[in-house]
Amino acid sequence: MHALWIDGGRLTLRDDVSQPEAPGEAIVRVRLAGICNTDLELTRGYMGFRGVPGHEFVGEVVSRSGPLASGTRVVGEINAGCGSCNWCVHGLQRHCPGRTVLGILNRSGSHAEYLSLPWQNLHPVHNGLSDDLAVFTEPLAAAYEVLEQRPPLPEERVLVLGDGKLGLLVAAVLQAEGHAPVLAGRHARKLDIARRWGIETVERCNLSGRDWDYVVECTGSAAGLGIAAQLVRPRGTIVLKSTVAGDTAGPLASLVIDEIAVIGSRCGPFPRALAGFERLSSAGVRLTDLIDDVLPLRDGVRAYERAASRGALKVLLRP
Amino acid sequence: MHALWIDGGRLTLRDDVSQPEAPGEAIVRVRLAGICNTDLELTRGYMGFRGVPGHEFVGEVVSRSGPLASGTRVVGEINAGCGSCNWCVHGLQRHCPGRTVLGILNRSGSHAEYLSLPWQNLHPVHNGLSDDLAVFTEPLAAAYEVLEQRPPLPEERVLVLGDGKLGLLVAAVLQAEGHAPVLAGRHARKLDIARRWGIETVERCNLSGRDWDYVVECTGSAAGLGIAAQLVRPRGTIVLKSTVAGDTAGPLASLVIDEIAVIGSRCGPFPRALAGFERLSSAGVRLTDLIDDVLPLRDGVRAYERAASRGALKVLLRP
Repeated sequence: MHALWIDGGRLTLRDDVSQPEAPGEAIVRVRLAGICNTDLELTRGYMGFRGVPGHEFVGEVVSRSGPLASGTRVVGEINAGCGSCNWCVHGLQRHCPGRTVLGILNRSGSHAEYLSLPWQNLHPVHNGLSDDLAVFTEPLAAAYEVLEQRPPLPEERVLVLGDGKLGLLVAAVLQAEGHAPVLAGRHARKLDIARRWGIETVERCNLSGRDWDYVVECTGSAAGLGIAAQLVRPRGTIVLKSTVAGDTAGPLASLVIDEIAVIGSRCGPFPRALAGFERLSSAGVRLTDLIDDVLPLRDGVRAYERAASRGALKVLLRP
Repeated sequence: MHALWIDGGRLTLRDDVSQPEAPGEAIVRVRLAGICNTDLELTRGYMGFRGVPGHEFVGEVVSRSGPLASGTRVVGEINAGCGSCNWCVHGLQRHCPGRTVLGILNRSGSHAEYLSLPWQNLHPVHNGLSDDLAVFTEPLAAAYEVLEQRPPLPEERVLVLGDGKLGLLVAAVLQAEGHAPVLAGRHARKLDIARRWGIETVERCNLSGRDWDYVVECTGSAAGLGIAAQLVRPRGTIVLKSTVAGDTAGPLASLVIDEIAVIGSRCGPFPRALAGFERLSSAGVRLTDLIDDVLPLRDGVRAYERAASRGALKVLLRP
């Protein structure tokens, strides 16, 4: 099959990749896949990844037998656990120490014609949800994870730091769920989108003081935690979203002096994300505003370049 | 009066320092004062401090009028708030943005014959508590702060990382309060003291895996957070105690990937510390084991050298 391939940080298009299959897993034909910043990090050596990248997708089941009928449109949780450890037993296979992760860790990804995932990772997509929305389920779940872990209290002033794709999604979720966030960023076009969605925005250079109760760090930068620590109030909360290859650095003494709580946050619950699309829509959030381009899988190398270009938002691949 | 003095990071003994006084504050004659790692950091430029250092002490009131009789033996909370902000109104003057801090921020410290503090900062010391225990009240309160913020749950496996003075105190408090910590360190003599107190110990080089539920980082090093992040389990908790001048650095992606919570922790509640001495003693913890030397204030420069020497524990100054 056709697929993108990363080896030694180099991205190529190949037409000789074996169609993935594994006993007891579903085969899914990819209908639409998203390029995430993590994919771009993989091409910079993050995780030492070798294989087919990609973890955002909407597809359809092609397996002939299994709990979901062939042709069912699905999205899929990206972490596949061992199924028997304490984490998996409690439904937290995304923390299973023996897990594989779609397109990130020991599992072929979604930037291909087909992928394979355990049946229990798949969630059917109802007819009312178009492909170009459903493809956002994975990053939307990551945004909802913030609310799963530590929702802001009613009186807390909430700042989302970073106006990239994840920052916009997190701000949208907080807005739709009634937490009235302020989004801080440096890109006029992205802040425009947020305002169109009814979200209050601020230029990052105009931020000062240490009076935010709750800061979600979505800068995608190694300096993000240090910046957030200079904005949150004493005893405030930082939710840390950026995974960056290499070291994080910053003047972090303030975490101790001001007794700040930092909560790392990664993948989230798909059911809550799937239920969230309607809540976002009702709140005036049009996620398709985030789509900059849809390119055929065969133009995948160019699509990655487009996704890595300054100020880009979501670039999608259609196999 | 005689006092130690830091200017431009240089420590000297002076005999011409004005006795501190402030309207409405108590004057306290220092009976015994401790040298803390923060004091050593001040001589390395931390906080750009200029003046009399020192924040650990036991003394006696010399003011003729006030809520406490002259001669009352006291210890004192080191943060003096404005008294009117939201923090101060809720008893958290240690987070008042306008605070002064004894021997650390805009307030003359305890490495002197006399100091001045607001009356409400002072806590009388009962006759049964000797000076050489009472002088530990401030660092003991900092150790109890861990339990104030986020006590370990009954089933959690607790690691204290770092066998310096604060690490030993935190381990002692956790032990006395029933949390059965393991203390990890690199100094045979310090680990010996912990074992004498009934605390389980481990050589830091023998630590591996990511299976600690709750790690208290007391390394005093900029690398401490990164080390703790490699020991704590996914979704575990790190309590961060080390304040270090300059940048903290480390491979912190695991905070996000493993959804770890980091809680900064600084000064703690004096009443709980004062009540804790008896609990520690009943648990077999003899805090005076931490005292390496007691030197006269006039030998203060030498005392700082002694405190900064490799493997040193607590050095006390007697004015």
